Parts: sequence; C-alpha cells; structure tokens
Amino acid sequence: MNGQDLIFTLKTIALSKDRLEMQQLLQQCHPADIGAVLGAFELEQVCLLLALTPAAARAELFGYIDKDKEADIVRALDNQAVSELFLHMSPDERADLFNVLSEEDQAKVLPGLAQAEREDIRRLASFDEDKTGSVMTSDYALLDQQLTAAQGIARLRKVAPDKETIYQAYIVDADRRLLGTVSLRQLIMAEPEQLICDFMQREPIFVSADAPREIAAQLISKYDLLALPVINGGDKLVGIVTYDDAMDVASEEADQDFHKTGAVGQVLGSIKDASVKMLYQKRVFWLVLLVFGNIFSGAGIAYFEDTIAAYVALVFFLPLLVDSGGNAGSQSATLMVRALATGEIVLKDWASMLGREFIVAGLLGLTMAAAVSVLGIWRGGPEIALVVALTMQLVVIIGSVIGMSLPFILSRFKLDPAAASAPLITSIADACGVLIYFGMATWLLDLPVTG
Amino acid sequence: MNGQDLIFTLKTIALSKDRLEMQQLLQQCHPADIGAVLGAFELEQVCLLLALTPAAARAELFGYIDKDKEADIVRALDNQAVSELFLHMSPDERADLFNVLSEEDQAKVLPGLAQAEREDIRRLASFDEDKTGSVMTSDYALLDQQLTAAQGIARLRKVAPDKETIYQAYIVDADRRLLGTVSLRQLIMAEPEQLICDFMQREPIFVSADAPREIAAQLISKYDLLALPVINGGDKLVGIVTYDDAMDVASEEADQDFHKTGAVGQVLGSIKDASVKMLYQKRVFWLVLLVFGNIFSGAGIAYFEDTIAAYVALVFFLPLLVDSGGNAGSQSATLMVRALATGEIVLKDWASMLGREFIVAGLLGLTMAAAVSVLGIWRGGPEIALVVALTMQLVVIIGSVIGMSLPFILSRFKLDPAAASAPLITSIADACGVLIYFGMATWLLDLPVTG
Repeated sequence: MNGQDLIFTLKTIALSKDRLEMQQLLQQCHPADIGAVLGAFELEQVCLLLALTPAAARAELFGYIDKDKEADIVRALDNQAVSELFLHMSPDERADLFNVLSEEDQAKVLPGLAQAEREDIRRLASFDEDKTGSVMTSDYALLDQQLTAAQGIARLRKVAPDKETIYQAYIVDADRRLLGTVSLRQLIMAEPEQLICDFMQREPIFVSADAPREIAAQLISKYDLLALPVINGGDKLVGIVTYDDAMDVASEEADQDFHKTGAVGQVLGSIKDASVKMLYQKRVFWLVLLVFGNIFSGAGIAYFEDTIAAYVALVFFLPLLVDSGGNAGSQSATLMVRALATGEIVLKDWASMLGREFIVAGLLGLTMAAAVSVLGIWRGGPEIALVVALTMQLVVIIGSVIGMSLPFILSRFKLDPAAASAPLITSIADACGVLIYFGMATWLLDLPVTG
Repeated sequence: MNGQDLIFTLKTIALSKDRLEMQQLLQQCHPADIGAVLGAFELEQVCLLLALTPAAARAELFGYIDKDKEADIVRALDNQAVSELFLHMSPDERADLFNVLSEEDQAKVLPGLAQAEREDIRRLASFDEDKTGSVMTSDYALLDQQLTAAQGIARLRKVAPDKETIYQAYIVDADRRLLGTVSLRQLIMAEPEQLICDFMQREPIFVSADAPREIAAQLISKYDLLALPVINGGDKLVGIVTYDDAMDVASEEADQDFHKTGAVGQVLGSIKDASVKMLYQKRVFWLVLLVFGNIFSGAGIAYFEDTIAAYVALVFFLPLLVDSGGNAGSQSATLMVRALATGEIVLKDWASMLGREFIVAGLLGLTMAAAVSVLGIWRGGPEIALVVALTMQLVVIIGSVIGMSLPFILSRFKLDPAAASAPLITSIADACGVLIYFGMATWLLDLPVTG
C-alpha cells in the first residue's frame, strides 16, 4: 500500500472509529510506513493511532516521527503513557526526544523511570546534536574475554532483547577501557571451546563522543562497520553508533550541505510539510543580503557612467560577463565543498589545488573568450569584442579562484564550508566583473572617466 | 598513522625494497587505509604492494581501489595472478571490475574460473551501473524452512566463509521464489528446536534488479535493513544488496546531485587526483552553453537601447535584478532537487507545491522590492525606484516558479532533476529579468522603443 492509500485508509477507519479494524491495519504495516504518513494527521488522530498500537511497537513507531511533532504528542499524553513510552524507546531516541521537551514536560517523564535510566537519559541528552555522543546508544552488548565462543553466544542470546545489536559485542577492562570487539560471525565461526581473547579484534576503530557526528558516519562507511564504539573521558567505552544511525547522519549532512550551497538555510523536517513562514525565513536572509552586496557593483557602474553612455553596446554583454565569473566560481566551490564534506580533501590541500585551478580556469576562460568574441564582433565590432574577450578571460580566472578558496577560508575559521553558496560567490564575482569590464573598456576605448 | 604518513612510509619502504618490512606494514594497516592512499603511487609500485599482500587480503584491498585504476592493474598482472584475484573477490566487486576491463582483458580472466563463476560474472555484469542489479551480490545464505533454529545456525556456520553476510538468511521455494527471511538474531533467540517456518519474516521487503539503485538504498535506509533481497524475472531471488553498498550508493548519488546542481558534470574518482583535462571537460559544457544562452538577454538589451541611453542609471540595477531572479530560482530548485532525490516528494506533488511557492516568492519579492527601492531612490530617484521595485517583485516570483518547476519537468521527461542547475536557472531568469526590467522602464518612463 503506498503512502496516499495508507493515509486514506487510516483516515477512513479513524473516522469510523472501528478500533479493531484499525488495530489490524496497524499490525500489518511497517512502523516506518506509518511514521512516514503521520504528518498528514491531526494531533488528536495521531494520539488515537498510538493508543491503538501495542506499547513496544508504539516506541518503535515513535522513532519514525519528526522530533518536533514528538514533543507535541508527549504533551498530549498522560504521565503514565509517557513513562511507558520512554521505557520502551531505545536510549538514543529517548535522549533525543528528551532534548526537545520543555522543562515542564521533562519533569513529567523522569519520575516514572528507574535511577539508571534517568542517568542514562541525562548523559546522552547532554551532547550537542552535531556531536557523535548525540547519535550513540548505550544499549550495547559487553562480553568477558575469558568466556569461550559458546559461552559468548549464550550470553548474547540472553541479553539480545535489550540490545540494539548483538552482531558486535565489546570487551572492556575493569575501568571500562575498550580492549577489543568480537562479531557474532566470529563467535559462530570459532570453535565452541575457543576463548574470546584468542580471536577478538584488538585495537578496534573507535571515535570520541566529542567528535563531529559526520566523522562517526565517515568511519562507519569507510571501514564498512556495523557499529562503531564511542569512547569518552579517559578512553572509557560509553556507547556505540550503529550503521543505520550513520546512514541517517550522512543523509542529513548531505541535505544540509545541499541546502546551504543553494543559499537556503537548514530546513527541518519534511519539505512537504514546511510552512510558508519557515520557507520564507530560510530563504530571505541570503536574498536580502545579496541586494545590499550589489551596492558594490552598482557603485562600480555609476563610476563608469560616461563610458556606458558612449558605448551602450557594452551593456549587452554585462549580464553575461558578470554571470560567467559567478558560474565558474560556483562550479569550483561546489567541487571543494563536497570534497571537504566527505573528508576527501583537508585544509592544507589548498595550495596544491590552487595551481591546478589556475590552469583549468585559464583554459576555461580562453574557451569562453573565444565564444564570446564571436558575439562581440557581431554585436559591437572588433574593439568591443576585444574588451569583452579580455574581460571574460579575467573574470573566469578570478571567479574560479574565489570560488575555490572560499570554502577553505570558511573552513579555516571553523565555519561551515557549505556556506560558500553560489549566490555569495555570484555577488563577489559581479562586483569584480563590473570593475574589470568597464575599467578595461575605459582604458582600451580611450575614454575619460567621471569622478 | 594518517594518510600522508602512510604514503611516506610505504614509499620509503618501496624504495628500499625491503619486502619483509613492507609485508609487516601491510598486515598492520586496514585495507581501507591502504586503498585510500594507493592513488599516490605509480602503477609499478601498486603492483609490488599487491604482490606482497596475501591473496585473500589482496582481493579485499582491491575493493577499495578506484575502478579505472583497477583496470590498469589487471592489465599489468599475469593471467594466473588475475584469475587468483578474481577467485577471491566478492561477486559484486568482481562483476564491476569485469565491466571496466577491455574485451581482451576480459578474455584473459574467464578461462581461469569455474563455469558457475563465469556465469555469475556475466549475469551481474549485465546490469546497467545505475540499476540495483549492479550493486547486488550473489553470495547470500539460503536456509530451508523445515530446519530447526539450531540446524539453521549450524548451516550458517558452515557456509559463513563464502557469504557476504550470515546475519540475514533467505528462504525460497523450489522455483527460487522468495518465501521469507530470517535473521541470525532471530535464530539465536528462538528455542533451538523451533522450526524456521514458525518464526521467519514472511512477505519481506524486496526490490527488483531493474529498479534504480538509489531505490534500493532508500529502502535499506528507511527500514533500517542489513540487507535487502533482490528479485528478477518471475519473482526469483537473484541476490542481495548489503547496507554498506547502500551507504556507498547514497553517498555517490548525493555527490552526483551536488555536482550537477553546481553545473559540474559527474566527477569520477577522487577530486584530488582529477586531471586538468577531466576538470576542464566536466566544467566547460555548461559555461559555454550559458554564453550562448545569454544571446537572449543581450538581444533584449539591444532592443531597449534607447531606453538605456536615456536612463543610464537603469544599468546600475541590472546586475542586481538579473541575479535576484536567478538566486530565488536556484533556492527553489535546490529544495526540490534534494526532496525529489530522497523520494520525499514525487512528480504529482508539483501542483500542491506550486501554490505555496507563489505565496513564499510573493513575500520574498515584496521584501526585496522594499530593500531595493531604498537603493533606487538614492541612486536614480522615485521613478527609477518604482520601476526597479516592480521588476524585483516580478522577477523573484517568475524565477522561483521556474526554479521550482524545472526539476519536476526534467523528472517528468525521465531526465535527472539535478540537471536543473543554478547556472541554467540563472540564464533563464536573466533573459526574463532583462525583458521585464527594460519593458517596464520603457512603459513607465514613457519612452519610444527602437525596432
């Protein structure tokens, strides 16, 4: 059943208030499918749907709902229902939800939980949402290195219901320092009597809880891990990041970079459900900033007013020349932003990339100068064509170098390289283009300049 | 040891030709780390490194090397080494490598392999690289539904060395139609005597081998799967896609979309190693196309030559007005391209998004018109300010609607929505902006138009 059909069926049943039919439908569907369509329902209907879902499945379903919507639902539920929900949720999702609740709602949740769980929530919720600590879970399986493979499997079998994964288990010392990892595959393939310490993976790949969450996602992707151990303060094992959370992180980071280079602020939740107000807020900042950024190109044009009045044909090529610098620059920026985001290049690669950028931009400029000089001769004669071609060559090189360097500069000052958006580069390249164009025209066409 | 250090150490050892030291170093490092730095080595050195790596590890290492470099290496190896390498590689990577070989090199590989493996390679290599079939593996574990849980585990233990994963196993009927899946976690948690058919997951989520590979990646991400069964012709199980391959697909697709909307063609391999020639080729197409796209705005400007000569102040605002339409448009396009890529919105959502886009663009246009009219009064007086403000309002709305619709239109004609790049939208918005601006100026400032 596709999304539209599911929404329709659920709404029809919700109207008829046939609880039994609703329960059957909810049992047939995957929680991910139901979670994906819950945005189409009123809060009251969502609460009814949740009430009809068994407690354990309810917690799973909750994991697929947008965070801001979750907070509304918690507010609508009574204390007992909230505590029960928290009890069944996985530690990382529980902590995320806790973080979006108001202080009042947080106070509603905590009393219903055991001491250990309260501490777990407080600890996980204490990490910034861009840190690895915020995406880790504390439900990982520990094994003793002196156990045999068979004993290890028996132990995992026992703890499986409470653990996020039993395919990776962790071996720690008395101070909870990480000694090694062992996979269920290794346990199964080993001789039953073999000791875990004889075949466990020592010096496993790990990440610090304070590391940016995209680092954790990159490590999991690079080394094809199922789960990555997270350590904190004094090398203590504090959690694991699982591959499915890493996939979500990678996808969210790609979304953010994509939106930023497109000069749109971070859009939370589904674009389909985004309000006019939110979209306006996410977009207006850059657009208005660029209006004022254009004061510089406007001032440049004003300075060369006489040149323009004498050669109106110069104006024909103005949009093209300013666009070309911006376009070449945003191409360079695009390549760098993505390569910096995926960790393919780092800050110190700038100098070595710069030389190649000059050559590539020089060749691109030459090609475009040739193309535009054809238009120039046709529209304005050989003199205009020369000015236009020389300007084109220069703006493409300058635009490319700016576009290539800006992500590195932002990165250097600990800003997000993705903020080097196409419109920002366009705006800078515009001002340069105007100055070069009319400056060169005034010089080559031998005209006086007004003050 | 970080990348730079590893390259340095490997090169030093390679020079000294101390094979033992090299072997030790290769054993200590993760294949992913070695694969990531191989780009810095000459072909000859790479072959030496591979020769010093044990056969099984060599195949694993090979999985981390860029595809085009792999082909060069295969060419440099003798027949026996190539056959041995193919024997140890996983089916999906083997098929990918086979696809980049020349016909001559393909002929070199096949004779050394068993009949079943030759057929497997031919089948996997027959899928287009953007289809699910090209990223699936045929090394999955099958179980009989009449086995008990304990028998199932024993069976998985036996086949583990040859299977990509044993955490998911598949149950098929006599015609190889998929009946269900069972996870190793379920097998471990079940009572040893329980029959698999009593607890296996029936009607599992699957994908067709012909489906675009990003659909497989989306399903794995949405349902948090470890592996997704792939079916083909008559519902037969033909392979599985594992989560690590899905992560690579998602990352490559994000890269491609990113590069395309930035008007850069698809860059293969590492940006760091990309040649000047390749970068030139990837970028020149769009830039030159846009030079000719600008013929339209140039022609528009030529048509209004008299207006411009009479009011040179109009030119001050020309770069700003044409940029604003393009910027607003590329913002809208960015949001739509990413939402279409992640499957968040589909083709038929266009009409419902259009209404909201009109309202958002109207409000953005109003804000920017207010901002620019301040500049307009300062630079050119109230009449010019009115023309500039009205033009701004119109170009932002028109740019936004074009930017928002273009990805849908491309998608409708089975083209990649990401091709709706910022420069393309800028170019279209430019031509509209010029016509609206000078048309409105000529009309409002009461001027005759030349032919």
